[in-house]
Amino acid sequence: MARRDAQPRDTKDKILSAALTEFSARGYADGSIDDIAARAGVTKGAVYYWFHDKADVARDLQRQLAERLAEDAVATIDPADDAVTNLIRGFEAWLRALERHDEARFFLRDCWAIPELADSRREDWVGPVRELLADGIQRGDLAPLDADALAHVLIGAWAEGTLHVLQSGDPTSTVAVVRHVVESLIVTRSTAKARA
Amino acid sequence: MARRDAQPRDTKDKILSAALTEFSARGYADGSIDDIAARAGVTKGAVYYWFHDKADVARDLQRQLAERLAEDAVATIDPADDAVTNLIRGFEAWLRALERHDEARFFLRDCWAIPELADSRREDWVGPVRELLADGIQRGDLAPLDADALAHVLIGAWAEGTLHVLQSGDPTSTVAVVRHVVESLIVTRSTAKARA
Repeated sequence: MARRDAQPRDTKDKILSAALTEFSARGYADGSIDDIAARAGVTKGAVYYWFHDKADVARDLQRQLAERLAEDAVATIDPADDAVTNLIRGFEAWLRALERHDEARFFLRDCWAIPELADSRREDWVGPVRELLADGIQRGDLAPLDADALAHVLIGAWAEGTLHVLQSGDPTSTVAVVRHVVESLIVTRSTAKARA
Repeated sequence: MARRDAQPRDTKDKILSAALTEFSARGYADGSIDDIAARAGVTKGAVYYWFHDKADVARDLQRQLAERLAEDAVATIDPADDAVTNLIRGFEAWLRALERHDEARFFLRDCWAIPELADSRREDWVGPVRELLADGIQRGDLAPLDADALAHVLIGAWAEGTLHVLQSGDPTSTVAVVRHVVESLIVTRSTAKARA
C-alpha cells in the first residue's frame, strides 16, 4: 500500500470520500479509478500517487469505515459487565451505527463479497471477539467451548445477520436471534445468571 | 446459461471436471477458460458451446458439488426426529462429505468469496434450513424466534464454521460450538428434551 506523507492529507481524504460515493452508487466491481478521480476533482495520477489500485482504495476505505463503526460498538463495552452483556450490546450498537451511515450500508454489503477484502476484515472482527470470549470462558461465566472456533462461528452469525437486517430493513427479529444465541453461552449458575 | 442437449453429455462433464481441477489448483480468480479447455482436451470453442463464460462454468460446477455434498446431509434427515437432531446431524454429515472431496475443499473455500456465486448459493442453503426451523417452531419444539432471521444467522455460523474447519484442519471444536448453538434452540420441556 502506498503511503507517502509529504503530500497534504486532505487530497487522500477527498479521494476516499469520493470512492465511498462511487462504490455506494455503482458497487465496488463497477466502480472505476477514473470516476473516483472525477468525483474527487483530482487527476488519475493523484489517485495513483496515494493508492496502488482500486483494491488498495477499497481496503483503506473499509478500514476507515470499520474503525468508525467499531468505535460505537467498543464504546458500549464495560469491563465491569460479563462477556455476554458486552457482546449483545456491541452487536446492537454496531447495527445502530450502520443505520446512521447510509453510504456505509451499501459499501459494507459489497465488502463481505470482495475476496481481497474479506480476509483482512475477518481477522479484524474475530480478534476482539475471541478475546472477550476467552476471558469469559476462563472466568467460568461461559460454556467451556473453544474460544477461537466460537469467535468464528459468532462472527459468521453476525455477518450474515447484518446482511439479513440490511436486506429486510428490520433489525428486531435478527437481534432477538443473536441475543438468544449469545445468551445460550451463559453457564447457568447463580452468579453468572445474576450478572447477565 | 447455454443448454444444448444435441451434444454428448460427456464433453460437458469433462469440461466441468477439468474446471474443478483448474479452480482447485489456481483458484477461481486466476483460472482461465483456455486452461480449462487444455486440461479437458477440448477446444475453447467446445467450452463456449456449453457455457457462456467462466462464471457460468463455476455456477454449474458449484451446483453439481453442492448437490453431491447435500446428498449426504439430506440422507441423514429423519422426519421422525426433531429439527435440532436433524440440523446437527446434517452439519456433521456435510463436514464429513467435505473431508472426502479434497478438491471440493478448495473450491468451496473460493465459492463463498465469489460475489456472483455467493447469492444463489446462500438461498440454496437458507431455504431448507428455514423450512426445518419453521416446522420445529410451529410444533413448539424450538424457541419462538423468526425462522427466516434464524436460518440466515445459522447459515452464517455454519459457513464461517466450515471455513474455520478447513483452515484449522480440526472439526471437533467447531462441531461442539455448532452443537451448542443449535441445542440452545430447544424449548426445555420434557417431551422436546426426551426427543433431543
